[in-house]
Amino acid sequence: MIGSTLDHLECSSTGERHDATRLHTTSRAGRPLLARYDLERAAATLSRETLRGRRWDLWRYAEVLPVQRRENIVTLGEGATPLLDAPGLAGALGLPEGSVWVKDEGRNPTGTFKARGLALAVSRAKELGAAGVAVPTAGNAGAAAAAYAARADLPCFVAMPRDAPPAVAAEVRAFGAELELVDGLIHDAGRRVAEVVAARGLLDLATLREPYRAEGKKTMGYELWEQLGDGGLPEVIVYPTGGGTGLIGMWKAFAELAAMGLLPADAPLPRMVAVQSTGCAPVVRAVEQGDARCDPWDEASTLAPGIRVPRVFADDLVLAALRESGGTALAVPDEEIVRGVRDLARLEGVDASPEGGATLAGLRRLVASGALAPGERAVLFVCGTGLKHPELRP
Amino acid sequence: MIGSTLDHLECSSTGERHDATRLHTTSRAGRPLLARYDLERAAATLSRETLRGRRWDLWRYAEVLPVQRRENIVTLGEGATPLLDAPGLAGALGLPEGSVWVKDEGRNPTGTFKARGLALAVSRAKELGAAGVAVPTAGNAGAAAAAYAARADLPCFVAMPRDAPPAVAAEVRAFGAELELVDGLIHDAGRRVAEVVAARGLLDLATLREPYRAEGKKTMGYELWEQLGDGGLPEVIVYPTGGGTGLIGMWKAFAELAAMGLLPADAPLPRMVAVQSTGCAPVVRAVEQGDARCDPWDEASTLAPGIRVPRVFADDLVLAALRESGGTALAVPDEEIVRGVRDLARLEGVDASPEGGATLAGLRRLVASGALAPGERAVLFVCGTGLKHPELRP
Repeated sequence: MIGSTLDHLECSSTGERHDATRLHTTSRAGRPLLARYDLERAAATLSRETLRGRRWDLWRYAEVLPVQRRENIVTLGEGATPLLDAPGLAGALGLPEGSVWVKDEGRNPTGTFKARGLALAVSRAKELGAAGVAVPTAGNAGAAAAAYAARADLPCFVAMPRDAPPAVAAEVRAFGAELELVDGLIHDAGRRVAEVVAARGLLDLATLREPYRAEGKKTMGYELWEQLGDGGLPEVIVYPTGGGTGLIGMWKAFAELAAMGLLPADAPLPRMVAVQSTGCAPVVRAVEQGDARCDPWDEASTLAPGIRVPRVFADDLVLAALRESGGTALAVPDEEIVRGVRDLARLEGVDASPEGGATLAGLRRLVASGALAPGERAVLFVCGTGLKHPELRP
Repeated sequence: MIGSTLDHLECSSTGERHDATRLHTTSRAGRPLLARYDLERAAATLSRETLRGRRWDLWRYAEVLPVQRRENIVTLGEGATPLLDAPGLAGALGLPEGSVWVKDEGRNPTGTFKARGLALAVSRAKELGAAGVAVPTAGNAGAAAAAYAARADLPCFVAMPRDAPPAVAAEVRAFGAELELVDGLIHDAGRRVAEVVAARGLLDLATLREPYRAEGKKTMGYELWEQLGDGGLPEVIVYPTGGGTGLIGMWKAFAELAAMGLLPADAPLPRMVAVQSTGCAPVVRAVEQGDARCDPWDEASTLAPGIRVPRVFADDLVLAALRESGGTALAVPDEEIVRGVRDLARLEGVDASPEGGATLAGLRRLVASGALAPGERAVLFVCGTGLKHPELRP
């Protein structure tokens, strides 16, 4: 035992409990399952003080992670990414120093934040005896799944759009996974994965169709809490939103921290801001229309593959996080995404994926609309490295 | 003050002292300068216990780093990379679990261990008032210099061979540095940098021609010490050797740790093993011939750009580290390098640069020759990410 206080899984829609000692994908109601912990017990050992001296990766938060036995941890050293003060960006936006921060998630294994979720999902797949894993992906989740499956010595099947970044397809193959390129988008890949899973008895790791990728992603929220220390959580989090796992995960992390008494009782939580592309903005449209769910986006098109997600499976949870946090959703055009990527490199030395560039474009719009008050801090989630995107180099 | 105990700079050849409060490149004798600290004072505050809770990057070792004032630290969150147990590689080599470890340096900013050295060099350039920086490079040091110069808002000039990896050239440009592609190899780039430095008053950051890149690289040694804890330093370190800064730096780190009383008095230090390519092996040849210096290698050729370094400026220091540690040097052909890259990905989920693959090829030869005794542990330095090398994908 490494101290996990995992208690059960809960249907995010009906609240029905599911046994956490068995493999699950979605709930009996067909909706996302969320991991629930004995947070009272977790709070007895998880604190800023006890975290000092723990390992330098996301497994430092063992109490609120689902893996039961240390030997089932499949790790490449994911998490514990830098949170960088970005005075150059702040200056370019006309903001004072200390207003803009970058969480550089490109520093994870396989160069993207997908590693966090897949490390957890593959570890639990191993722990609970899955014969292998399969994942539909815009690209990077497939690369991460392939890497962790290689490390765990589990078979891995990946389906991704034929026009996904060639660097990512090559990466999946290098890790020894079986790759199938699919005509269409990520939901078309999802259909293909469902067929393969049914035929071969693999575990489907599609976004929020299993409970543990969100648990890995939530550690981004724990890290913000730990890294900002006495400064408290940031006022605004700008997050590139495709399937929304990280946004849901971080919102869950803040609720857990609050329940454990690790946040000041009166401190407001961050406003969560989802950034999408004008070429694929189902969440933005739902927010603007006040809808509780997202309609599929027709003819999705953007140069940022990670946010080219026309059907958001956990749309209700994404929209709830935005609403409950007092946040919003913004769409930015591709040319602003490219400008964001270039400014991150030129002004801060941060090599960002296009989705990362989108967050800077989103922040520009927030600032222009006065949505960031004086003294407030915004954290941009640069979710991946620019090394996979030679097409965006100046 | 952040606790640096930097005292002076010392000529590695004559021992002559140089003032550490001014910018220097080489010593008055034209040889590398090494930073010397008040290690007695450092030992008063640097210990396993005090390191608990410090920041998750190489700046945690502030006492033995040269930067004097916190505001001069130019950081992208470098260092604190994972040290991964590699049972899959151990098994493939016929070794027991726990024998093979991978230090995944590809997780640094700009995807290589060059970030460590350039973070320090650029921070000191800023602290001591340099007008800008320039660097000759096989590629990755240029990308790192460009990133840190962007972050420090300093001009940066980079010269690299025309046949350097295109991904790296594009990266340098993205960070806003001035890039010049040079006919020839890294020493030809070095001549061009010397001209530009003279004309523009920039600081030359060529390998071991300034004292602080080695200080950044030495933190790899401190991390091994910290990460392996009570297990003690590994018996063997397998290191891809071009200019040799990291090898020299780690050997210096172990001497500092010993001087501070942070190593058991009777424990042997690691045997340092330099891996080069059969197409460019000046260090290997010197070791085989028992020479104290390395002759330049004619017609250097290998697909691993980082070890295509025919003239080793700090050859005496590299050879001394190998000799004093009881280590050796090995040359491996390109096809074994490619196999190493593929096995790291397929067996461990680690995406390695060709120089990283070379270390696995080197370890295979060590094992075949019986140079790794039963129960000994070898650490492979995977110095960069495979994402910059699409040409090596299967």
